[in-house]
Amino acid sequence: MSPPVPHLPDLRPTIAALPGSQIRAVANAALGRPDVLAFWFGESDQVTPEPVRAAAAESLARGETFYSHNLGLPELRQALRQYLAGLHGDPGDERIAVTSSGVTALMTAMQLLLSPGDEVVCVVPVWPNLPAQPAILGARLTRVPLAPDAHGAWRLDLQRLLQAVTPATRVLLLNAPNNPTGWTLTRDEQQAILDHCRRTGTWIVADEVYDRLWYGDGPAPAAGGARPASPACAPSFADLATPQDRVIVVGSFSKAFLMTGWRLGWLLLPAGLIGPTGTLIEFNSSCAPVFVQRGGLQALALADTLVPPLVAHLHHCRDTLCDALATVPGVHLARPQAGMYAFFSMPGSGDSLACAQALVAEHGLGLAPGAAFGAEAQGWLRWCFASRDPQRLLDGVERLRGALRI
Amino acid sequence: MSPPVPHLPDLRPTIAALPGSQIRAVANAALGRPDVLAFWFGESDQVTPEPVRAAAAESLARGETFYSHNLGLPELRQALRQYLAGLHGDPGDERIAVTSSGVTALMTAMQLLLSPGDEVVCVVPVWPNLPAQPAILGARLTRVPLAPDAHGAWRLDLQRLLQAVTPATRVLLLNAPNNPTGWTLTRDEQQAILDHCRRTGTWIVADEVYDRLWYGDGPAPAAGGARPASPACAPSFADLATPQDRVIVVGSFSKAFLMTGWRLGWLLLPAGLIGPTGTLIEFNSSCAPVFVQRGGLQALALADTLVPPLVAHLHHCRDTLCDALATVPGVHLARPQAGMYAFFSMPGSGDSLACAQALVAEHGLGLAPGAAFGAEAQGWLRWCFASRDPQRLLDGVERLRGALRI
Repeated sequence: MSPPVPHLPDLRPTIAALPGSQIRAVANAALGRPDVLAFWFGESDQVTPEPVRAAAAESLARGETFYSHNLGLPELRQALRQYLAGLHGDPGDERIAVTSSGVTALMTAMQLLLSPGDEVVCVVPVWPNLPAQPAILGARLTRVPLAPDAHGAWRLDLQRLLQAVTPATRVLLLNAPNNPTGWTLTRDEQQAILDHCRRTGTWIVADEVYDRLWYGDGPAPAAGGARPASPACAPSFADLATPQDRVIVVGSFSKAFLMTGWRLGWLLLPAGLIGPTGTLIEFNSSCAPVFVQRGGLQALALADTLVPPLVAHLHHCRDTLCDALATVPGVHLARPQAGMYAFFSMPGSGDSLACAQALVAEHGLGLAPGAAFGAEAQGWLRWCFASRDPQRLLDGVERLRGALRI
Repeated sequence: MSPPVPHLPDLRPTIAALPGSQIRAVANAALGRPDVLAFWFGESDQVTPEPVRAAAAESLARGETFYSHNLGLPELRQALRQYLAGLHGDPGDERIAVTSSGVTALMTAMQLLLSPGDEVVCVVPVWPNLPAQPAILGARLTRVPLAPDAHGAWRLDLQRLLQAVTPATRVLLLNAPNNPTGWTLTRDEQQAILDHCRRTGTWIVADEVYDRLWYGDGPAPAAGGARPASPACAPSFADLATPQDRVIVVGSFSKAFLMTGWRLGWLLLPAGLIGPTGTLIEFNSSCAPVFVQRGGLQALALADTLVPPLVAHLHHCRDTLCDALATVPGVHLARPQAGMYAFFSMPGSGDSLACAQALVAEHGLGLAPGAAFGAEAQGWLRWCFASRDPQRLLDGVERLRGALRI
């Protein structure tokens, strides 16, 4: 008897329902078109600095091709502790785990905290990976929307967020500085959120991978004054939380060190969670490659040399793009205080996916549709301004003008 | 009012209950002791071949440091298709995804298939990551034990396994060749299992990362005769399953190419699952580093040069160790047909963790306790024989003799 064979694989309904990437849906329209100016992905077009690549190559030449500690090389964990100490004050012992990317760090945090059915509150719009992870684990998501003000700057209704977080809320998921909107939590808002979550017993998972791409003023010193004079950095929950707080902060080498393709990130955890975190890393990926971690070590050693010029360059890119977009009639945007995205609306962007597809197909301009980040951002477009050559940004704006027939 | 602060972080009970690694518990006893002969981890002490490391270094020098496709470089996926075609017959289009390690491939398969509460049947003892992954996702695990015969060879009771797999069973999880026992499914057993799972609608997730470390005869050709004259390889579900079967096969560069520290593996999926798999990879890790994938490409290009001598060397290592252990009175073991472990019992190994800890502390011999792989393997010890210098294995056996006062 011939066995019955399914026509379509019966994967989990939850997984079948996960949205495909709308950014990919746009980018696919540009396959084989070298004329397209692509600003859709969240990465710079600059190669990782040479000393970082050399450190990895030297590690390979030395033969560092074996398994390593689940939590990362001890020297990298120590270097991260010193790096974070310079930004936020010393986190103390045994609070840092190295992960195979920032998104992996986030998934590890979710696995630590979320049982099936648990409630998660997430501020949106946000890059799609954040709300997808709780769904994969069977948790329930409540979306608290940011909204644009009259100037196109996205704002948080703090009271609405605090009302949404109750003792039934297991995790509050925050990405600030935010991808795609550039919205950033103020120090006062972070303190109010932390105070509230202490009362409700809610965990805060803070995706702060854009912390160094900060064009605002330095944050005010944390209460207690222990925080050292620091490099420029967005306000962080790491400035406020004690080692006993239910706060997990996720960082990454991707954005501030031009290392997107390396897949290297970290977790800053409360005291006492490092053991189970190592166990989860073992069961998900086991460890990050040693030679990749050697690159991370070199990046941290050169942080004071590499990061400030990169941020200054991105600051210039932001102003170049935003100044140019501001001269385009109908374009509505605010200058973001952080991150590497201009987020704007314009005539014809109401269906942002169709608009982005038309922009690439007809004008060779590659942008990400706002709808990729949630229905709340329908009608908006994301433009990554991390470009080695700012002239590319101006060329892109000319194409936008062409699309608008201006 | 000062907020209440927890003394211990309240992570998920499921995660708190995950067992820590008993291998690490033994290895920790050897920290700072260079005199220890360590055979506890599942990797060779040989560095990755130089051409593979050079390919990655050249990629870094070229500046391949950007995000890449979720599913892997198209050329690596094509090379894997050709490699698997040589072993099992052409799998066809769009069935291979590159993952950031074999264990990551397994977790991706679990996320594709397992909803909370789903039933998983797993043949044990087995490396601890396999049963841990369903637990992390809230699935329920039924363990079907192998058992050692009078000669110390671990055997499957096929009827017992088939009775355990019912229409309520969502996934059958198999690691064959098996870590730690060396047990391997025969072609006939695979066919019977596949036939049964076709009837019950159960998915087979086959962890076959030890497929090339095969010291038996070549498997019989698959029904239909489409399978080409192949390099030596353990029987594989990839030989039997059609693209419509609910079968996922997991492979890895780690063992056959001496690339444990690279974290590079793959999934062979049914037709139609590649899209959701790319989405899950995006949400878990996004992609493997391009320079790591360039190493994998070079490894596949050199597979016919690299793998057969490695397997011949491991074959020699196996015989060296097993011959020596066979002369030790009280040691009970069978020669494994596959893999890189000798799995044995001896007087005093009844509490395998205590025994392994005593062996390392008092005799400088580092073995993995059987209990690390499940209660079914309590009383046994695992010895990794993948050693560049077989004399190390003989030195280890001398230490074992010392421990047994022989």
